[in-house]
Amino acid sequence: MNLRRIYVLRIGHRPVRDHRVTTHVGLVARAFGADGLFLEEKVEDSVVQTIRKVCYTWGGDFKVEKLKDPINFVREWKNKGIVVHLTMYGLNIADESMLNLIKSSERDILVVVGGEKVPRILYDLADYNIAIGNQPHSEVAALAIFLDRFFDGRELLRNFPGARVRIIPSSRGKKIQRVM
Amino acid sequence: MNLRRIYVLRIGHRPVRDHRVTTHVGLVARAFGADGLFLEEKVEDSVVQTIRKVCYTWGGDFKVEKLKDPINFVREWKNKGIVVHLTMYGLNIADESMLNLIKSSERDILVVVGGEKVPRILYDLADYNIAIGNQPHSEVAALAIFLDRFFDGRELLRNFPGARVRIIPSSRGKKIQRVM
Repeated sequence: MNLRRIYVLRIGHRPVRDHRVTTHVGLVARAFGADGLFLEEKVEDSVVQTIRKVCYTWGGDFKVEKLKDPINFVREWKNKGIVVHLTMYGLNIADESMLNLIKSSERDILVVVGGEKVPRILYDLADYNIAIGNQPHSEVAALAIFLDRFFDGRELLRNFPGARVRIIPSSRGKKIQRVM
Repeated sequence: MNLRRIYVLRIGHRPVRDHRVTTHVGLVARAFGADGLFLEEKVEDSVVQTIRKVCYTWGGDFKVEKLKDPINFVREWKNKGIVVHLTMYGLNIADESMLNLIKSSERDILVVVGGEKVPRILYDLADYNIAIGNQPHSEVAALAIFLDRFFDGRELLRNFPGARVRIIPSSRGKKIQRVM
């Protein structure tokens, strides 16, 4: 059994402007199987609250935490785990060799996603700079694709323990079941 | 050769609040191989401009257009093509039977992505209500995963004709090449 953990660090958040995007990064991290999310201190508390509220309602054991010094956190992470930085400038994930290396490792993983401005040092600290294609698009999409490939799509069938509601998949309309 | 086209319709945009998210939907649509994006009239012109600027710089023939009546547009689309609605309430894409049906069709496809509030009628108009997992996350991520599965990952290797710059994939740092 693999007890390896995978966390997401979102950097480059711009207050107000990125409010929804950072929230989406957090919800994607949770829904696609990551164990937790680290945020910069400047991120609005309402982002943290929205993600925690989703965890409360929809279940799972997903951790959200703000960091005083994200770069130093990345440095220290390297003592125990792998750092994967998702960037359009990196090596394309379509070449699966990097992904296979990451999958075959047993170390914990920190997936770093930025916005438009990422400190240069991160490119050097990262063990892997991976591009989800080399076109400009979205850190939300990049994170989803990375986790989807990492878990081979199985994350979409995951069960979230402690959920208060769950969806009954339906070809038409909305069916929600109250669990507790 | 399959000349089928695939377009994205983004509905449920909330001005200001969804400015970045709708921009990301557009950039993901383009980067992941869709032919164009339809938006509601209330979407800020700056969203359209940002997406068009990316097309100008990074190439490709991606169309962006606002619609006066999106619901009527969906109705009329059904005369010539398939409507796929991405919603967390739908049938999970992890069951590949729907995806295979869509792939094997030769009709044009309209992928509808909403936010939190989507008119009920869309669930009925859609030929397929598909969930990218039945957890709350992000229309940006949902669109990326749908297109990635639809194109079997090949979209990440796509060439965008007429690009003025392109990235030289790199294991460290940023390498950009001016093409014209």
